[in-house]
Amino acid sequence: KDTYQITLLPGDGIGPEIMASCKEVLGALTKRCGFTLEMKEALIGGVAIDEAGDPFPDESLEQCLKSDSVLLSCIGGYKWDSNPRELRPESGLLKMRKSMGLFANLRPAKVLTQLIDASTLKREVVEGVDVMVVRELTGDVYFGTPKGIDVIDGKRVGYNNMIYDETEIERIARVAAEVEASIHITGDRATCCRAYGDVASKRGGKLCSVDKANVLDVSQLWRDVVTDVITKEFPDVKLSHMYVDNAAMQLIRWPKQFDTMVTGNIFGDILSDEASMLVGSLGMLPSASIGESGPGVFEPCHGSAPDIAGEDKANPLALILSAAMMLRYDLDRAEEADIVERAVEAVLDQGLRTADIKQEGDGCKLVGCIEMGKAVAEIV
Amino acid sequence: KDTYQITLLPGDGIGPEIMASCKEVLGALTKRCGFTLEMKEALIGGVAIDEAGDPFPDESLEQCLKSDSVLLSCIGGYKWDSNPRELRPESGLLKMRKSMGLFANLRPAKVLTQLIDASTLKREVVEGVDVMVVRELTGDVYFGTPKGIDVIDGKRVGYNNMIYDETEIERIARVAAEVEASIHITGDRATCCRAYGDVASKRGGKLCSVDKANVLDVSQLWRDVVTDVITKEFPDVKLSHMYVDNAAMQLIRWPKQFDTMVTGNIFGDILSDEASMLVGSLGMLPSASIGESGPGVFEPCHGSAPDIAGEDKANPLALILSAAMMLRYDLDRAEEADIVERAVEAVLDQGLRTADIKQEGDGCKLVGCIEMGKAVAEIV
Ligand SMILES: CC(C)[C@H](C(=O)O)[C@@H](O)C(=O)O
Ligand SMILES: CC(C)[C@H](C(=O)O)[C@@H](O)C(=O)O
Repeated sequence: KDTYQITLLPGDGIGPEIMASCKEVLGALTKRCGFTLEMKEALIGGVAIDEAGDPFPDESLEQCLKSDSVLLSCIGGYKWDSNPRELRPESGLLKMRKSMGLFANLRPAKVLTQLIDASTLKREVVEGVDVMVVRELTGDVYFGTPKGIDVIDGKRVGYNNMIYDETEIERIARVAAEVEASIHITGDRATCCRAYGDVASKRGGKLCSVDKANVLDVSQLWRDVVTDVITKEFPDVKLSHMYVDNAAMQLIRWPKQFDTMVTGNIFGDILSDEASMLVGSLGMLPSASIGESGPGVFEPCHGSAPDIAGEDKANPLALILSAAMMLRYDLDRAEEADIVERAVEAVLDQGLRTADIKQEGDGCKLVGCIEMGKAVAEIV
Repeated sequence: KDTYQITLLPGDGIGPEIMASCKEVLGALTKRCGFTLEMKEALIGGVAIDEAGDPFPDESLEQCLKSDSVLLSCIGGYKWDSNPRELRPESGLLKMRKSMGLFANLRPAKVLTQLIDASTLKREVVEGVDVMVVRELTGDVYFGTPKGIDVIDGKRVGYNNMIYDETEIERIARVAAEVEASIHITGDRATCCRAYGDVASKRGGKLCSVDKANVLDVSQLWRDVVTDVITKEFPDVKLSHMYVDNAAMQLIRWPKQFDTMVTGNIFGDILSDEASMLVGSLGMLPSASIGESGPGVFEPCHGSAPDIAGEDKANPLALILSAAMMLRYDLDRAEEADIVERAVEAVLDQGLRTADIKQEGDGCKLVGCIEMGKAVAEIV
């Protein structure tokens, strides 16, 4: 196969600028490597609310589902912050995840030697850190019912149900174990493990499941099911369990103790953002969201940074690295992914830095989003 | 008043040793200052399970309720880890909080100059950090119903209800605002603000409320109610809101942006543990749990460290500092609290360090729990 349908979701804020830089890189890549990406844009987020009255319109969903893969920039902005919840950009993201069945979110937090001093943690603490956070993405208190704000005995009461059933836990445990153990299996689950051979082979076989089983029933089930799946199906994976409060500490105290972490939607939301700080800048971090089958969505971990939107200050590298993940994992183009990733390292070696990764006195050259994109494209 | 009834809860692991050191300090203090602490021990945690079949027996509750204040070491241990939930040490803690109405948990994370290098974060990031995390302690997914593990359509399903009513949110917002703004009011709420005059007067008037209002209904209510209470009752407090994932990042990225944070039970559990890492060692951190009226419970933030229990390696300073909080806030003995706090700083200045706060090459003297306690008592 040498022609792929890609849906681009430029989104809000700095989204369109970084997407433009990313397209330039992908353009150079396809030219060099002789394959075709048929890229078509679709709406999500604030721009979708403005133009279609829905943060993830059905046409966007349809287009995503019939493509080979989806590349998303970022969404959100002050403008929509006081909308009712169903008309907020974030709701589009949640709708996308649920309707595309993207139950597994993979967020690597890998410290690059070139940027080691960008972290607020000491060099010896973050040097060599390479943590993969596998977050469940379509369950938990994010989607649980009943939920709402009711008036009971004259008092307002707000509630959401933190809920998981065993099949939801099983499938995310499998993805995490496959990430961790680099076990290549076929059949149903091929989709999951398809994605991470490369990542996994570098990992140490240690999987840490994070929950709050000392307090929560839902966490007790989580712990039981994860333990069952791993001991029965992945006897080589070294499984440990950690309470979420302790995990939040340990990530700062000694992050090198972790290889892969697996956790639920809300704990994963918190811990993956925390872990990203080990790397120093969100502007460098890609992510992948995948399901049992069908296209995955690849997107940077950062937000839409409305304060610098349109000023050519954004860092396009996280999106470019997300495109590399897409090439490797959804399009089966590992070589091309390597080319992109090496090009990113090369521009860093050349000393180019966007504002978010520029350190005082690092002797590097401050560049904008456009110049950074061009530099990567050139090397590619 | 010069005689106080104090309930001591030595608990498990290193609990009894650090309590012994703390009693030595309190003994020296009462001798010097001419007042009496009538201290009586009661059971909580694993030891209570072993001796009374309940992690917080009714006799312990009664004794706590009729004292002027309660000092707790720490609970838990491997021995009870596989017990059914109601027979685990943690359940005793939760029962104590709920039955004593301790809805507000105050955890100061203040970086001491003597220990600044103990943190894994860079000196310039943590120097001068003084964050107070105010965590709601008797609501949220910790206590919400319905909860359980059921079998539905042949699948096990685990669930807990993340729930707050507006009165629960109002009262914790008030405590946080009082902590922050040092507003001394009388009447109903005197109990709350009694506690924090000193702390508060040092603070900057910035209060950050942390939630996940972009996803959760319960957080939307949280945000609405906190906003109402603060704007109506505390117009001088500068209130901001932050999503919990972002807060987990910002605590590492630039902790000095925070004065006081207020949040729900589970987010507070995670963020206060994370914040404690800014200080470098849990062994230094006290906490206070208080209600509308009645005795508060003062305890270190650290756990029971069963791996070093009985080896005279534990750091008693967090408990000693918790006792200082008790003196100041529950017993109205601010001067005596100062004496204790200054004595702790003095032993650090003398260069005494327990293992947890000893740095390689810091030129300090490694001491055990007993010696550390004696040193503080001597200065007192
Ligand atoms: C925007 C928000 C709904 C979203 C989430 O909480 O999942 C974001 O924080 C993320 O991590 O992708
Ligand atoms: C032991 C556990 C139940 C407890 C909690 O989650 O509240 C602890 O982590 C704490 O923060 O005091």
